[in-house]
Order: sequence, then structure tokens, then C-alpha cells
Amino acid sequence: MRYLIRFSYDGTLFHGLEKQKGYRTIQEEMENVLTYINNSCYVKLVCSGRTDKGVHALLQTAHADINVEITEDKLKRAMNSLLPNDIHVISTKVVKNDFHARYMVKEKTYIYKLNMGEFNPLERNYVYQFNRNLDVKAMQDAIKYFIGVHDFKAFTPSKDKRNSYVREIYDAKISKSKDILIFTFRGNGFIKYQVRNMVGLLIQIGLGKKDKSSLKEILEGKNRNAGYRTAHPEGLYLIKVKY
Amino acid sequence: MRYLIRFSYDGTLFHGLEKQKGYRTIQEEMENVLTYINNSCYVKLVCSGRTDKGVHALLQTAHADINVEITEDKLKRAMNSLLPNDIHVISTKVVKNDFHARYMVKEKTYIYKLNMGEFNPLERNYVYQFNRNLDVKAMQDAIKYFIGVHDFKAFTPSKDKRNSYVREIYDAKISKSKDILIFTFRGNGFIKYQVRNMVGLLIQIGLGKKDKSSLKEILEGKNRNAGYRTAHPEGLYLIKVKY
Repeated sequence: MRYLIRFSYDGTLFHGLEKQKGYRTIQEEMENVLTYINNSCYVKLVCSGRTDKGVHALLQTAHADINVEITEDKLKRAMNSLLPNDIHVISTKVVKNDFHARYMVKEKTYIYKLNMGEFNPLERNYVYQFNRNLDVKAMQDAIKYFIGVHDFKAFTPSKDKRNSYVREIYDAKISKSKDILIFTFRGNGFIKYQVRNMVGLLIQIGLGKKDKSSLKEILEGKNRNAGYRTAHPEGLYLIKVKY
Repeated sequence: MRYLIRFSYDGTLFHGLEKQKGYRTIQEEMENVLTYINNSCYVKLVCSGRTDKGVHALLQTAHADINVEITEDKLKRAMNSLLPNDIHVISTKVVKNDFHARYMVKEKTYIYKLNMGEFNPLERNYVYQFNRNLDVKAMQDAIKYFIGVHDFKAFTPSKDKRNSYVREIYDAKISKSKDILIFTFRGNGFIKYQVRNMVGLLIQIGLGKKDKSSLKEILEGKNRNAGYRTAHPEGLYLIKVKY
């Protein structure tokens, strides 16, 4: 039986989602638990996509094939009783055998949290502590350029080689609540570092170090050395995956 | 020179505020930094009051005497550059030599955060993960009985011996935002475990295991074995101290 698993995690103490020898990863913790439930027959976890070291998920999805008979609810409860407390299974659902958690993704939503105010030790791992003021209006204007179908090569790491960097962003916006900015990006898919690089450039615009129009130029120029920094991982959350 | 220091901390990795041999405490981290700045002459930190293991502060206050000449702003910056990232100095202010951070407190405000919804791994150390529904209306009615001048002996630990358990609570309320409850208690002072015990009884009322009127009976009866549990520390925050 193939199961769709919806889960959340605190990325702080993980070396990212994907399994890596010698590091604590979300995939390995999940597979260990699934394999145990599956009478010690190895269960592979296929996620909707990776998240990097320190990045969080309020809702991540994956599929896994389990041979033992177990109800959806019992699987959820068994997993949660065995998982460490920085991962939590929200729901499990039996799906068709040709369901694929990565290839069938239609839409993903990420948010990025940034604090312009006083350093908050309680949120140091959950909100990027920028602790300086930004021109929010300029950033709100600029972020609109990301909406639509674009080649996002300029916002991917130079090591990344692939056939196409074209993705569609359905919505991109910034909301402000006191000193906290929340960036929301909804699209058909995102390349490694893409969201954090988009936020990185928006920060430069908010600081007045780059012009609003530079965003369009960099996007169209596909230039990867465009003079901004990848925003810290701890502000980034995967919050929704749609099939 | 005597300084009033306003600071915040994440209580998760501390064994409480008060110095204890062999444990990591907020007082010791702060005193180490202040002593270093004070040319290695020991500086004692006198706080507005203790917080327990796992309890947080968005705003705690303390006073300390420093002999070296240093401006308010430099002291703040020096402390923050030396402190671990789970403590943060918000401000420092020169005060009169007879100012006392504990004896002169006029009012304190605590909040308590509780999640009735799905377990959230990202907030496991910051919001009590109760993960069950509560009758919020019953709790909102009951909490009002705490307002006023009362003998709070029933809400203090049996080991605690003191002359008077009389305190005044100026305001006590519960607000709800989606699945999160926020209890607010504002008063002239709180005894060890008092807030967590009041929340513990309110939870019993919210579960329907105790009647609304039981709160008044327990309060007036001063009975310390009233059949509820002290609520978990991670939901509790000191948020304001007034002089």
C-alpha cells in the first residue's frame, strides 16, 4: 500500500531533509520509523522536494510503500510515538500505487520570516534576525516582478546544472505585522536556494543598495553573481504542497 | 553606577534564572559577562524575580553595580556581543543607587500559551502542546475569579513557607487565536508556580473535570492538594515588569 504522508518539522537540529552519511536528517529519521513499523523491511521516503539545513516545514509531503496492514490513523499514531519531537506526522492517507509525491506536485507555497526590530532570542531559529529597518514599500513593489513565468537561473547557485530554470510564480507578496515581515511565494516549483536568493535581493532593495528595477534586470540577465547574499535558512518555511 | 538592565531570554536550555552549582543559568551567564566588562571584579545581578527551568522572558529586569566608566549604549552592545544567543539585552539605564529591581516592582505581567490543535514541532519549546480541545468559554468565565486581592496559598507548592500568600491580580483573561490560547495575568506579584498552577486548574475546568465554581472554593479553602497539575513551563513568559 502506498501512503501519502503530510508532516511538519523544526529544521534547526537537522542537516536538511535529504539523507547524508554521518548527519542527522529528516529523511533518515522518517525512514527509520517507517522501516521499524514495516517489520524491519526498508521503506524509502519520497518527498515533494528537499529542504536545506535549518529550513522548516509546517507542511511537507512524501509517499512511502508499506507492506504490513495498518490503518491510516494507526500509522499516524505509530509514527508519532516513535519519531523525535522535532518531526510530527499530521496525516497519512492511502493513495493509488502510481501516486508520486515529487513528480505530481502542482503547487508549493513557501513563507520567509524576517525581524526588522530588536533581536529576539526566542525566535533566533525561527525568524531571520535582521534587526534593521527596511523600505518595505520598495520591496513590496519589487516582489511583483517575480510573478509569472520566468527563467530563474540568476537566483540559483552556480553549481546547479539543469536543463531548465523556468518556473511559474503564481503569487509573491510581503505582509508586515509590527517589526516582522512575512514574504509569501506560491508557484509550480522552486529550485534550490531560489526563495532565499529572491529574499536576499529584496533585502538589498529594502536597504536602498539596489534599485527596484535591478530585480527585473537580474532576472532577465540570468546573471548569477548579482551582488546579494542568500538569506539565512532559519526564516524559511515550506507551508503547503498541492497535487 | 547602578544600571537597570532590561533583557529577554529563551528559557529552553537554562536550568532557570537563579544561579545553581553545576547548571547553566541565566543569572550566571549575565554575571559572567558583567564581571568581564567590570575588569573582572564580581558583579551581582539582582533580578525582579526568578523564573523556573524552561520558562521564558520577553522582558525581564535586573539591576547591577558597575565600577568602570561605560555609557548605557556601550554597555548594551558589550553585553550582547559577549552573551550567548539565547539571552539578549534590550536596554540599559543608569538609575539611582537606591533603586532595587526586586523590592520596587509595582506590577508584573505573565502570559501562558497553550495549543489545543495538532502538535506543532516548531513550537514544542514555546507553546504548551496540549493538543486537545477545551471549553474556552468556561475557562474565560472562571479566570475572572482570580482578579482582586486573594490569598493564593492553594496555588503555591506545599514546600513553600512564607508569612503571606496575599497578592493582588489586576487583570486575568484568555484570548483565542485559531487553536492557540493566550492566558494573561497582570498583578502586583506572583509566588513560585502560582501562574502555572492557576493555568493547571483552568485546564481542568476547560476539560469539564472541574466546575467553574471550584476555582473560588479552592482559592478560599487554601487547600494545596486540589487535584490539578502544574502546567508545563514552556508555555510561560514574563512579558512586563513595572516600577
